[in-house]
Amino acid sequence: MRLGILHPGAMGASVGKCLLTNGHEVGWVSQGRSPASVQRAAAFQPFKNMDEIAAWADGLISVCPPHAALEVAQAVHATGYQGLFVDANAIAPSTALRVAETLGLSAHVDGGIIGPPPQERNTTRLYLSGQHAALIADWFQGSALVAVVIEPEGSDDSHVAASVLKMAYAAYTKGSAALLLLVNALAASGGVLTALQTEWHRSQPGLVDRSEATAAMVSGKAWRFVGEMYEISETASAAGLPDQFHVGAAEVFERLAHFKDLPPQTLAQILETLATPK
Amino acid sequence: MRLGILHPGAMGASVGKCLLTNGHEVGWVSQGRSPASVQRAAAFQPFKNMDEIAAWADGLISVCPPHAALEVAQAVHATGYQGLFVDANAIAPSTALRVAETLGLSAHVDGGIIGPPPQERNTTRLYLSGQHAALIADWFQGSALVAVVIEPEGSDDSHVAASVLKMAYAAYTKGSAALLLLVNALAASGGVLTALQTEWHRSQPGLVDRSEATAAMVSGKAWRFVGEMYEISETASAAGLPDQFHVGAAEVFERLAHFKDLPPQTLAQILETLATPK
Repeated sequence: MRLGILHPGAMGASVGKCLLTNGHEVGWVSQGRSPASVQRAAAFQPFKNMDEIAAWADGLISVCPPHAALEVAQAVHATGYQGLFVDANAIAPSTALRVAETLGLSAHVDGGIIGPPPQERNTTRLYLSGQHAALIADWFQGSALVAVVIEPEGSDDSHVAASVLKMAYAAYTKGSAALLLLVNALAASGGVLTALQTEWHRSQPGLVDRSEATAAMVSGKAWRFVGEMYEISETASAAGLPDQFHVGAAEVFERLAHFKDLPPQTLAQILETLATPK
Repeated sequence: MRLGILHPGAMGASVGKCLLTNGHEVGWVSQGRSPASVQRAAAFQPFKNMDEIAAWADGLISVCPPHAALEVAQAVHATGYQGLFVDANAIAPSTALRVAETLGLSAHVDGGIIGPPPQERNTTRLYLSGQHAALIADWFQGSALVAVVIEPEGSDDSHVAASVLKMAYAAYTKGSAALLLLVNALAASGGVLTALQTEWHRSQPGLVDRSEATAAMVSGKAWRFVGEMYEISETASAAGLPDQFHVGAAEVFERLAHFKDLPPQTLAQILETLATPK
């Protein structure tokens, strides 16, 4: 198959390599992308623009920051593209439905990726839902990226179940990461961070180390977590559940967004930034 | 010393027993309290009202739900009480300062209890700050409740450091508990709870069991966590940090408040209640 990745960052590039390994042709749109992206996509066939890749591809996979997902779908639609479109982004089911409406429900497959960029099997799963989910899973058969088709129980929105699952999963991992950084900042603001760490060593072993690890893990990615937190808040709101939790998480990540492309930061650096946002 | 506990629930009763063991006389106000409270306080000297206990006591310790802390302080102030007043409640430093202003800064000692009602040593700590903190710590010397005087680093609010520490600690433990229940409810709303549990078993071992344990642990206490979450949100706001996280947590607990005094609930019961609030 001829498959296009829109637009390969670290995750998209790994997904594309899984498809290459499986014998597919893989393309991407090179125009206006950074040298880092060009390097990551060196094994893929470059296309100048969306019109060219849309004319070539049997299938397109959108892997981009959450805030750009709808825009990418609209740009694909504008080309008159008629093939399958997999949206594998971390977006609310309501956003996924807007993407589906943009491309046409019968052309759209909803996806959500859980895990790091796949290098070896069993670290990362691509969840898929909707009419053609099984077809897409076949593209990845046996590759490092394990494709899983899900069928929701007792829900009307089976078409976007993969997005709900991704939202719920990220709501905990990224929500609790934001919470942990916020809590450290709260203690630091009152001069009791050392006292909190001493208490944690006694009654919550691991939280001190996890705080430092979270600072390093989050700092460079916070810029793209912001949109994801708002998508989760929207998911909660649409489900009639409390939605302010992830607005708070979005604000935490927003204050760290300028660490994009910088080396991992220490907890002390993160706490100073949270307390005195730019 | 003659020490009064206002108003002994499970925590206050255990604190009072530590004082009894240390040879102090312990009093409480019995009027209008539930049979369960009367039973818990059987070893303490009963007083009819606040005027009587205030006239008798050398020291008063307030251990009550966060939303009642200021009211208790005001009721004590109204008696003309001149002794030491320890506020050991889970309240924002700004609320603790209002309590201090109500009683007079030189009479007020700020406290925060971390851990379960103390039955044996090293499970639970009473953090203390302010001018007379060391004096209060002496009352508990060698008892099951370990008293710890804290001195904040580089903060102007050393008087209420114990409250900041309690807020930060509870911000994570109770905030992450609310988050975990919310995330389960989010997955259930889209029919993907089983899929989330399968993914958690793979990549976040322990979260499925912790969800069930959290439901059982939280259900009976959620009613008093609500006020505590708003106090934490206020603490974050006053520190210039994102404050919406714990408004969301308050909403989660608010939906569970009617489980007060009922046996521990299952996760399934909690999720149904979160999805269809009373």
